[in-house]
Amino acid sequence: MKFNSISPQAIEALSAIVGSGYVLLPAAADEMLRYTHDETEDLRYEPELVLKPANAKEISSILKYCHENYIPVTPRGAGTGLSGGALAVHKGVVLSTERLNSILNIDERNLQATVEPGVITQVFQEAVIARGLFYPPDPSSRGSCFLGGNLSESSGGPRAVKYGVTKDYVLNMEVVLPTGEITWTGANVLKNATGYNLTQLMIGSEGTLGVITKIVFKLIPYPPQTLVMLVPFRKEEEACAAVSQIFMAGIVPSALEFMERDAIEWTNKFLNLNLSLPEDIRAHLLIELDGKDMDLLYQDAEEVYEVLEKFDVGDILVADTEKQKADLWHLRRNVGHAVKSNSIYKEEDTVVPRAELPVLLKGVKEIGRKYNFKSVCYGHAGDGNLHINIVKGEMSDEDWKHKLPEGIKEIFKLCVALGGTISGEHGIGLVQKSYIGIALNEVQLRLMRGIKDTFDPHGILNPGKIF
Amino acid sequence: MKFNSISPQAIEALSAIVGSGYVLLPAAADEMLRYTHDETEDLRYEPELVLKPANAKEISSILKYCHENYIPVTPRGAGTGLSGGALAVHKGVVLSTERLNSILNIDERNLQATVEPGVITQVFQEAVIARGLFYPPDPSSRGSCFLGGNLSESSGGPRAVKYGVTKDYVLNMEVVLPTGEITWTGANVLKNATGYNLTQLMIGSEGTLGVITKIVFKLIPYPPQTLVMLVPFRKEEEACAAVSQIFMAGIVPSALEFMERDAIEWTNKFLNLNLSLPEDIRAHLLIELDGKDMDLLYQDAEEVYEVLEKFDVGDILVADTEKQKADLWHLRRNVGHAVKSNSIYKEEDTVVPRAELPVLLKGVKEIGRKYNFKSVCYGHAGDGNLHINIVKGEMSDEDWKHKLPEGIKEIFKLCVALGGTISGEHGIGLVQKSYIGIALNEVQLRLMRGIKDTFDPHGILNPGKIF
Repeated sequence: MKFNSISPQAIEALSAIVGSGYVLLPAAADEMLRYTHDETEDLRYEPELVLKPANAKEISSILKYCHENYIPVTPRGAGTGLSGGALAVHKGVVLSTERLNSILNIDERNLQATVEPGVITQVFQEAVIARGLFYPPDPSSRGSCFLGGNLSESSGGPRAVKYGVTKDYVLNMEVVLPTGEITWTGANVLKNATGYNLTQLMIGSEGTLGVITKIVFKLIPYPPQTLVMLVPFRKEEEACAAVSQIFMAGIVPSALEFMERDAIEWTNKFLNLNLSLPEDIRAHLLIELDGKDMDLLYQDAEEVYEVLEKFDVGDILVADTEKQKADLWHLRRNVGHAVKSNSIYKEEDTVVPRAELPVLLKGVKEIGRKYNFKSVCYGHAGDGNLHINIVKGEMSDEDWKHKLPEGIKEIFKLCVALGGTISGEHGIGLVQKSYIGIALNEVQLRLMRGIKDTFDPHGILNPGKIF
Repeated sequence: MKFNSISPQAIEALSAIVGSGYVLLPAAADEMLRYTHDETEDLRYEPELVLKPANAKEISSILKYCHENYIPVTPRGAGTGLSGGALAVHKGVVLSTERLNSILNIDERNLQATVEPGVITQVFQEAVIARGLFYPPDPSSRGSCFLGGNLSESSGGPRAVKYGVTKDYVLNMEVVLPTGEITWTGANVLKNATGYNLTQLMIGSEGTLGVITKIVFKLIPYPPQTLVMLVPFRKEEEACAAVSQIFMAGIVPSALEFMERDAIEWTNKFLNLNLSLPEDIRAHLLIELDGKDMDLLYQDAEEVYEVLEKFDVGDILVADTEKQKADLWHLRRNVGHAVKSNSIYKEEDTVVPRAELPVLLKGVKEIGRKYNFKSVCYGHAGDGNLHINIVKGEMSDEDWKHKLPEGIKEIFKLCVALGGTISGEHGIGLVQKSYIGIALNEVQLRLMRGIKDTFDPHGILNPGKIF
C-alpha cells in the first residue's frame, strides 16, 4: 500500500473540516506529545497531523478526503491501549475521538444507553449506577479509557467471568466507514437475525474497519450486594486449579482474579499498603461474589470455602465493608502500574480454557528458565486470561531484543496448543502483529484481509495493525 | 450469477465422495420429499441431488467440486427453519448435515462442549443437564431442530431474555468454506481479541458463508429451581407494558412470554387442554423465574406481583410442580403448531426494544384493519420479539398475494422506526428477502455482499438468500 504524506493543501482542507482550534501540527511539540504514544511499552510514533473532530459528519469528511488522497488515518481514544493500536505507524492523521464525549441517553424503560465513543468507561458506569442499572465491563484502566477504545480492542476486565466482555453489551453502533459513509451496524434490539452481524465484526477490529461514533449498549439491573475475599495459596498452580473447581461446584463469581506473589508484593510496595505476606504464600485469588441478597452471598461463600479446603491455603481475608472491598480492588487494579514502575517489561495477554491455567503457568515458568527471563503473572483467571509480564531485570539488551521474541513465540504456541489464543482483551495492534501466524492460519488471514478490503479499499484506516 | 445444472459426470463425482448409500436423486421421490421443504409456509423446491456426507473432509470435497463447477449447494439441518433458508431455490445440491450428529465431548473442567452440527438441540440440552450443566438456548422446535441450524439462523427462544441467544454460547466453530478449505473460526476461550470475529460473522449468516462442521459451546452451571406463572390480562397492551416494568423493578426472569387470547385459545383447543379462559381476558404473560434457591424465587415472585398490581390482571396461576410447569410450557411451545393447523398463515418475526412492544402491537392491529387481515401475536416479549401470525381466514387469494405484502411492509417499517428490525431469530432466508431494504441500507448491503464475495467468490453456497 502506497500512502501520500500530508501536503500543505491537505492540512488546509482537513483543518477547514474541524476548525483550526482542533488541529495539532508537529510544531506544537508539547501538545502533540500525548498523541505519539499509548500505554504500550515505550513506543513513540509522531503523526503528521492530529485532528479532533466534533461529530460523525466531520469524521466522514475527514475520511472521505483521506480515502481519496491515500492518507493514513489512525483513530484514537484515550490512548490507554496495550498493543499499540492507536500509534500512527504510517504517519498521516491521528483522529482523536476525545470531543465525542456525551452520554446521549440512558433509557430506563428499555435498559439501554446511547453514548459517544469518547466517554470514559467509569463515568458511564457511574452514570448508569445512579439509575440503578449496571454496565459490567470493567477494564483496569476504566478511570481513563474511552468506551470506543474498549469496543475497538474487545476489552474485558475482571467481571467478564460472570457478565461477559464489552462485546456482549453492544447492541448497535453508528460508524463512519473508511470511505466516508455513515451507517448503523444493526438495530437496538436484544435479538437480531437480519443479515450478517456487522456489529460484532466491527468490535475488536482495532479501528481498522471504521470509526465508531455512537454506541447503543444493553444494560442490566444493578446487583446491589457484593462480597470480596482474598485467598492466599502456598502453591501457584493450586491457585490456578482452584479456579475451575469453583465453577464446577456451580458457583459463578463476579470476579476471580489470580495474582502471583511478586504481583501482589510489588503492588504492596508501590501503594505502601503494609499488607502482611507470609513467606510461604506464592499466589492469591481475589474472589468477588455479587447478587441481590447478602445471605445468599454468604451461602455461596460457604460453598467456595468447601472447594478451597481441598487446597493448601493460608488465612482468607473476607471483605464486606465498602472500604475493605475498595482497598482490595485498588490493589488489584494497580498491579499493572506496579510492575511497570519496577522494570522495563513486556506484557502478554494470553488466554486458554480456564482449567488449562495450571499447565500454562507451569509452561511459562519453564520457558522463562530456558530463555532466562523472569515473569510476573496475574489476571482474570476465571476467564483463563493470564497477563504475563516479562520483566527485563538483568537481561542484556541484545537478548531482550532478539532472544526474548523466541520465548514469547513458545508461550503463544503453548496457548494455542491448549485451545487458547494470543490475546484475550488487549488486541493484536502493532506489538503482537509478528506473532499473528501462531494464532491464525492462512485461510483465516485471507478472509480477514478480504473483509478489510471490502470496508477499506485504499487501506487508509489504521494501516500496519493486526495483519 | 450463472450456475451449471448437474451433469451425469457431476452426479458420479459427487456420489463417489459420500458413497452411493448417501445420495438421493429426484427419482427417489418419496425419500427426496423431505428435502424439498422446511417449515416455512408451504414452499417447495426440488434439488437435483441430495448428499449426506459423513464429515468435514467429505464436505470439503463436495464444496471444492461445486465451487469449481459453479454448482449451487444449499446446506440443510433438520429443515425446521421458518424463513426458507434450507430451500434449494437455484436447484443444485442439498447438503444435509444429518450424519454429523455426535456430541464429541462434554468438558466439565472447562464448562465447554464440542458437538457436530446435526445434533438435535434437546438431545444436547439433556446430555449437559445430566452433568449438572446448562445450555440455555431453547427454540420452540428444540425437539427436532439441529444445533447447526440454530447457529445458522441465530436462533433464540424463550430463555434468551435472561441468558442470551445461541450466538452467546458459541466459542469456536470448525467450518468448511465454499472454496473447500476447512478452518476453525476462533479459539476455545471466553475472551478473544485476536483478529476479526469470524465466529460471530458466521453465526446468523444462514448458510451463505460456510458449512459448520463442529461447534464449541460455552456452558454454565444448571440452575436447579424454577417457578412458572401464567398471568391473565384484560388488555393486550397492558400485558406488553408490564414486561418492561418487571425489568425496571430489577427482576430478570428466565422467560417472559406473551400470548394473545387467540393464541392461547387456539392452542387450548388444539391440545384439548380444558384451560378455562374467562371472556374478558385478552392476553397472557408466561413468566418463569429460575435460580439456585426456591425461597429467593418466591421473593422475586412477590416483587413481580407488586408490579402486576398496577395492571388489570385476572387470577394468576402459579406452577411449582414439575407437572404444572411442563403443562404450561407445553401450551406455549405448541402455539405455533396450533395457529398453523387453524389456517393458512404467514409468520413475521418482528423485534423492537421491549418497552416499545405496546406501540408495535397496537400498530399491527391498526395495519391489520387497514389491509383487512387478522393476526395472532405471541412471542418472547422479554426480548421485544413478537411473532405475528397473519392468518388468511376470509382473505381472497388475490389480496393474500398482492395486498398483504404492502401490509407486511408497513409492519416492518414500524419495527425499524421503533429501533427494531425485521427478524429477531428466524432469519431472512427466502421469504423476507424482498423486505431486506426496509431493515438494511445500501451501505450495509454493499458490505455484506463484499463479505459474501470474499468467502464465496463463485456464489455457490445457498444462493438466493438474505440479499
